Amino acid sequence: MANSDHIVLLDFSVSPFAMRVRLALAAKGIEYQIKEEDLTQSKSALLLKVNPVHKKIPVLIHNGKPVWESLIIVEYIDEVWKDRFPLLPADPYQRAKAKFWADFIDKMVYPSNYKVWAANGEVQEAGKKEFIDRIKMLEGELKSNPYFGGETLGFLDVAFLPLYYWFHTLETFGKFSIEAECPKLVAWGKRCMEEEFVCASLPHPHKVYDLVVEYKKKMGI
Amino acid sequence: MANSDHIVLLDFSVSPFAMRVRLALAAKGIEYQIKEEDLTQSKSALLLKVNPVHKKIPVLIHNGKPVWESLIIVEYIDEVWKDRFPLLPADPYQRAKAKFWADFIDKMVYPSNYKVWAANGEVQEAGKKEFIDRIKMLEGELKSNPYFGGETLGFLDVAFLPLYYWFHTLETFGKFSIEAECPKLVAWGKRCMEEEFVCASLPHPHKVYDLVVEYKKKMGI
Repeated sequence: MANSDHIVLLDFSVSPFAMRVRLALAAKGIEYQIKEEDLTQSKSALLLKVNPVHKKIPVLIHNGKPVWESLIIVEYIDEVWKDRFPLLPADPYQRAKAKFWADFIDKMVYPSNYKVWAANGEVQEAGKKEFIDRIKMLEGELKSNPYFGGETLGFLDVAFLPLYYWFHTLETFGKFSIEAECPKLVAWGKRCMEEEFVCASLPHPHKVYDLVVEYKKKMGI
Repeated sequence: MANSDHIVLLDFSVSPFAMRVRLALAAKGIEYQIKEEDLTQSKSALLLKVNPVHKKIPVLIHNGKPVWESLIIVEYIDEVWKDRFPLLPADPYQRAKAKFWADFIDKMVYPSNYKVWAANGEVQEAGKKEFIDRIKMLEGELKSNPYFGGETLGFLDVAFLPLYYWFHTLETFGKFSIEAECPKLVAWGKRCMEEEFVCASLPHPHKVYDLVVEYKKKMGI
């Protein structure tokens, strides 16, 4: 792509879905402009205009054209800038597996995650159990590799890593240890954090916690 | 791929998700073996073995390796047999759009669809309104093209067409006319049905109705 590419991300710093897009852009070394949406306020006119269907961040606006839904945006970035830091593997079966587990995170892990940080009592307890059961399945997928992408960080790492950045928040609200249950997964998260582009594009897990506390307060959750 | 490919589809004839896979395989002219799951009975040992995560059909077993989730399976088929009948467009932006609308069908249209055929009263009425509003958005995406794929049937056609095969069922249960609301969409569905590979791989809309009546009866819905 030309250097004259104009790239804007409609973002919300603590959103794990927006974080995926920031990670993919950072992995590829792509410069872009951030427009932070304040999700505790009413949605901006720009967001309503460029994502009239779901009215949600993240939206990637590439040379004026909007791309929606975090996993689809990450794939789009991988296809447009295919000359550097490939995210999805080349082999169709490995691609299908990476997409399957990313989809599993959205369908199965996020609903449990939400119960841990936004609920209390029995619902939270059930959420914790569900959450651990489900991320254990993902931990199994890591096998003995350093990354989900194998020897290098790939699509599924990008899809999952924002949730790792929420682990401290979940542990604090849920009063439990994820590391005690999934030590390999926590070691993977720490390994990913050593990548310069990762820590440069995501807020530190402690900052995520502060932002979530603030968000919950404003939203009355 | 070699002629010695061994392909098995764990199927349920009336499932719109399984229908997508049959359509993609038929578009590519791929021979395969069907193993019909009776979803009114307990799940087969084979299904539980090859899809331990979701325990759902469709599963495509290609040379012994299972692929899960209908849209991911269709993409997999498109990538493995890329030499014939391409389904996803080549352009990354058009690919992202096709994937977005297919995802929209799963997230937004199917929940409404379910209310129309499996509910009654107010829930059904609300479902009908929601369903029409949402498929109208899809109809808008058709623009003046014969297919969602443009001049030829593509990924989004494959993703949406099984639902068209359910229109007669929905109209009968919901006592409403989809054609009156979305004439362009119904014309598109009729156009697709003229393709030999389409009608050869899906049960006729009247047969879908009979099967759904039978299914509802067995399941006590």
